[in-house]
Amino acid sequence: MLAPAVADAREEREEGTASQRAAARPVPLADRVLSADRRSIARALSAVERADDAARALVAALYPHTGRAHLVGVTGSGGAGKSTLIAALAAEWRRRNRTVGVVAVDPTSAASGGALLGDRVRMEGLLGDPGVFVRSMATRGAAGGLARATLDAARVLDAAGFDLVVLETIGAGQDQLDVARAVETVLVVEAPNMGDDVQALKAGLGEVAALYVVAKAELPGADRTAAALRGALALDPARDGWRPRVLLVSATAGTGVDALADVIDEHRAWLAEHPANRQARVEAAAAVELRRELVDQLLRRAAVTNEALAAAARAVAERELTAYEAAARLLSSGA
Amino acid sequence: MLAPAVADAREEREEGTASQRAAARPVPLADRVLSADRRSIARALSAVERADDAARALVAALYPHTGRAHLVGVTGSGGAGKSTLIAALAAEWRRRNRTVGVVAVDPTSAASGGALLGDRVRMEGLLGDPGVFVRSMATRGAAGGLARATLDAARVLDAAGFDLVVLETIGAGQDQLDVARAVETVLVVEAPNMGDDVQALKAGLGEVAALYVVAKAELPGADRTAAALRGALALDPARDGWRPRVLLVSATAGTGVDALADVIDEHRAWLAEHPANRQARVEAAAAVELRRELVDQLLRRAAVTNEALAAAARAVAERELTAYEAAARLLSSGA
Repeated sequence: MLAPAVADAREEREEGTASQRAAARPVPLADRVLSADRRSIARALSAVERADDAARALVAALYPHTGRAHLVGVTGSGGAGKSTLIAALAAEWRRRNRTVGVVAVDPTSAASGGALLGDRVRMEGLLGDPGVFVRSMATRGAAGGLARATLDAARVLDAAGFDLVVLETIGAGQDQLDVARAVETVLVVEAPNMGDDVQALKAGLGEVAALYVVAKAELPGADRTAAALRGALALDPARDGWRPRVLLVSATAGTGVDALADVIDEHRAWLAEHPANRQARVEAAAAVELRRELVDQLLRRAAVTNEALAAAARAVAERELTAYEAAARLLSSGA
Repeated sequence: MLAPAVADAREEREEGTASQRAAARPVPLADRVLSADRRSIARALSAVERADDAARALVAALYPHTGRAHLVGVTGSGGAGKSTLIAALAAEWRRRNRTVGVVAVDPTSAASGGALLGDRVRMEGLLGDPGVFVRSMATRGAAGGLARATLDAARVLDAAGFDLVVLETIGAGQDQLDVARAVETVLVVEAPNMGDDVQALKAGLGEVAALYVVAKAELPGADRTAAALRGALALDPARDGWRPRVLLVSATAGTGVDALADVIDEHRAWLAEHPANRQARVEAAAAVELRRELVDQLLRRAAVTNEALAAAARAVAERELTAYEAAARLLSSGA
């Protein structure tokens, strides 16, 4: 068994061929993903990242086989300690005999290729473990493309049978929020004294976060950050019956990771006991995803380019045209 | 001069006729709005609420004449004291010899017709003051319609020459956020012990709020709520150089209103001194508005009904179709 990072790199080089094969016969690749073949999983993830027709056929073939994995979103600013935490969690889950897929999206690591997470995984002794699959995706392309690629990647890993699928996202854009709304358990990672707890709430994550983790709990200020978070959350009337938790974790010292894994399980059990709540969330996420697809497909049909869109937005900002007029012109010129 | 509420009511009865006239000759109505004729302003606001073709032509004619008024968004939960605060602010601005337009949007007051705000305005002795124009709008129609109608109403009042235009919104939906992003100064109103400061932050308002007002400062718990807000905001690294303020105001006791009016001016002065910051905000709001118009017009062209959209979203949620497939089917059946 090749180490995941190495296998990924090799399979990446073959992606042109893989794409052509996938386009011609998408279902065989889907079948191989369903049988958990690692190289096929890697190829499927490459296809998803390209978001071409082959990827759409592949995801459509896999879609009925998804929904078994526990999808966990891990978000927070750069430097909060997400990669270290995810690697420690993955090791804990492996000790509990559960398999783990990780999709890491980091707009700042396009160059490094997710080296940080790879390093952490190696340090945890998970390289070569067939029960772990790690994939970094660079962010690129139009708005909305990141959310689609990330969620489709999670579907591939879900269909391939991983028990837990972790989606690591960074930043505070609409894409991140769309991903957070589509997963089951959202975990917001804070480092002590980074002053970004309110940042996460501001980004709308408070609405969906099940857990706040103060990572690097060995650093001074961790208790104070946890207390500030608990204070802010205590002001919040209990929502849907699940009270968001604040946990202190030191991945380097190895403290708090087991408790965190327990609470993540507890949250899924709570969701299972509250199917109406869960269903409402699934439907809302589906509606968001559908709307994004509709806009994409409609703009493509109307041949509206990103450049034309940006120029029209500038005209609206300059008060040359109302939004209604600008939209009507874009569509009539495209038609 | 008729009292605003009375004039509004009378002009409403004529709206059918006004609409027909506006549709036939939109520019004359725009000219009369620009000359600040109150009955024409009322008719223009009725047209905007109907969002018909006449309204679009009217807003297009007025659009180049907008951008002079200071647009102030006032938001917060029902019962926080927004109406009382806005009436007190309007009275303070009139003492400073500045004119004030108010657009109040309250989904719960469709029946009462904004009676609460009208009462407050009367209590402040502003009825019959030609320097004040108050209009309540009921929320109705499709998502996005509220934001469009509210912003277009603000444009009418802006073009009519009011110095300050206040947009009162309630709740925490996407519409409210879109309105907040499109105005210059956003003021979040909290009542003591309502526990919704984090609620506002959760709704994404923290991203745009310039000011937090703890209204009903005469009630016990006001200081504690202000301290909690200041604590939460202090955790937030200064953003764009403007530090959000927390003010205590008792509209009934008449304390804090003058300081609030000062800080609102101060915020506009700060925006004027930071044109790049302001421009980025204007462009982002224009892009959001344009995208909403595009989606509306495209869905209308593709004849996609809200019912078909909801059914497709359910199919995606049930994993019967991927979002891509559902979108493609919707568009091909509509075409």
